[in-house]
Amino acid sequence: MSAPEENANAAAAKPAAKDPWELPDVSGLVVGVLGGTGDQGRGLAYRLALAGQRVIIGSRSAERARDIAGDELLGPVGVEGAGNAECARRSDIVIVAVPWSGHAATLTDLREELAGKLVVDCVNPLGFDKKGAHALAVEEGSAAEQAAALLPESRVTAAFHHLSGVLLQDREIDEIPTDVMVLGEVRADCEIVQALASLIPGMRGVFAGRLRNAHQVESLVANLISVNRRYKAHAGIRLTDI
Amino acid sequence: MSAPEENANAAAAKPAAKDPWELPDVSGLVVGVLGGTGDQGRGLAYRLALAGQRVIIGSRSAERARDIAGDELLGPVGVEGAGNAECARRSDIVIVAVPWSGHAATLTDLREELAGKLVVDCVNPLGFDKKGAHALAVEEGSAAEQAAALLPESRVTAAFHHLSGVLLQDREIDEIPTDVMVLGEVRADCEIVQALASLIPGMRGVFAGRLRNAHQVESLVANLISVNRRYKAHAGIRLTDI
Repeated sequence: MSAPEENANAAAAKPAAKDPWELPDVSGLVVGVLGGTGDQGRGLAYRLALAGQRVIIGSRSAERARDIAGDELLGPVGVEGAGNAECARRSDIVIVAVPWSGHAATLTDLREELAGKLVVDCVNPLGFDKKGAHALAVEEGSAAEQAAALLPESRVTAAFHHLSGVLLQDREIDEIPTDVMVLGEVRADCEIVQALASLIPGMRGVFAGRLRNAHQVESLVANLISVNRRYKAHAGIRLTDI
Repeated sequence: MSAPEENANAAAAKPAAKDPWELPDVSGLVVGVLGGTGDQGRGLAYRLALAGQRVIIGSRSAERARDIAGDELLGPVGVEGAGNAECARRSDIVIVAVPWSGHAATLTDLREELAGKLVVDCVNPLGFDKKGAHALAVEEGSAAEQAAALLPESRVTAAFHHLSGVLLQDREIDEIPTDVMVLGEVRADCEIVQALASLIPGMRGVFAGRLRNAHQVESLVANLISVNRRYKAHAGIRLTDI
């Protein structure tokens, strides 16, 4: 709305905006996946390890985590398995892919191990009934905000909500052409998560707002489930015009 | 999870599922746009009239509606202008594109005129502060559910939330490659709205759930605003794998 001259002056005075697609090198970071024995966690672990990342899956049972880490999908790409606490302690980035029903309890137990870590919450609080899926109300606003409340010493972000566990775990599929919406309060933390998502062929990690806007990103999975039913698909999201 | 034989038997017993992309002919229906003098409404009116649909824009002031309908964008594509009540009365499909602040009052006033009509709510209840946009809590759950509560004699759907008013109103742009998520309770009503969206080159109208899942679709605009700021874009949504 301001005059063109004013815009030109403002642009001259400000430093050039950073290229939003310029992302950090994350190749040296160890990625832990809590709930890595579930479809979403196992699929993410497979894709990240396939892309060359060092990945540890965690489970309440270390034995079960080691079994899944050695299975026909994860074994060949070199994923490790461990109990949740060890998984968190040994990782730089910790993806939280546990069921919503175990979300608060798991994070409460791991507060100490997750201190200082970059936590990536990908949990979708959904309920199911005869009419399909629907969003659940979360006291803190969203799963991600619940994580931030329970883990005050961690760097909490949210991402990887809209990926199909089926596609992630399908070895016949090389590319997953979809975008990962990344939310968080600190730009540098979001960029690490964006870089991680962008390692998977076809995917882009896109910054999509602060944690207070995580609820709708998590809940949108209910809509994707409706799309999947109607169109017999494994729908994801691509952001247009970027 | 069932054996392949069982699946084959079930498929043989059930009638073939309807092709979800087979949509009705809506060319004879008159489309009204309440709030058609705003960016979103004016842009939608332009695109639908350009595609050959008969369109009437409504405003609280009939004079203002007629002025905008005759402007350099809408005049050449033959859009009409009228007061909100006349717009609703003369239309078969009524798109609600008013600001959230006027949503409840506008619909309460027009309950009689909207009885029996197919109402398409595209309102996003958002608040804005120094940190950007955020979702507002709506007592009924969402703008669309508020519309359904206020208009018990209408057929309420929700759609057209994620379109950029800037792109819609740009005459240099011929195609808008994005998807329109359509929500509602009645399949036939949703399909009319899907068909309407699909008239615009590049767009697909996609069924994406019931009205109880409208809140996250409306609120996702807060995230698109964050994307737009970071990437200097007019972001929209494309659903993948369909």
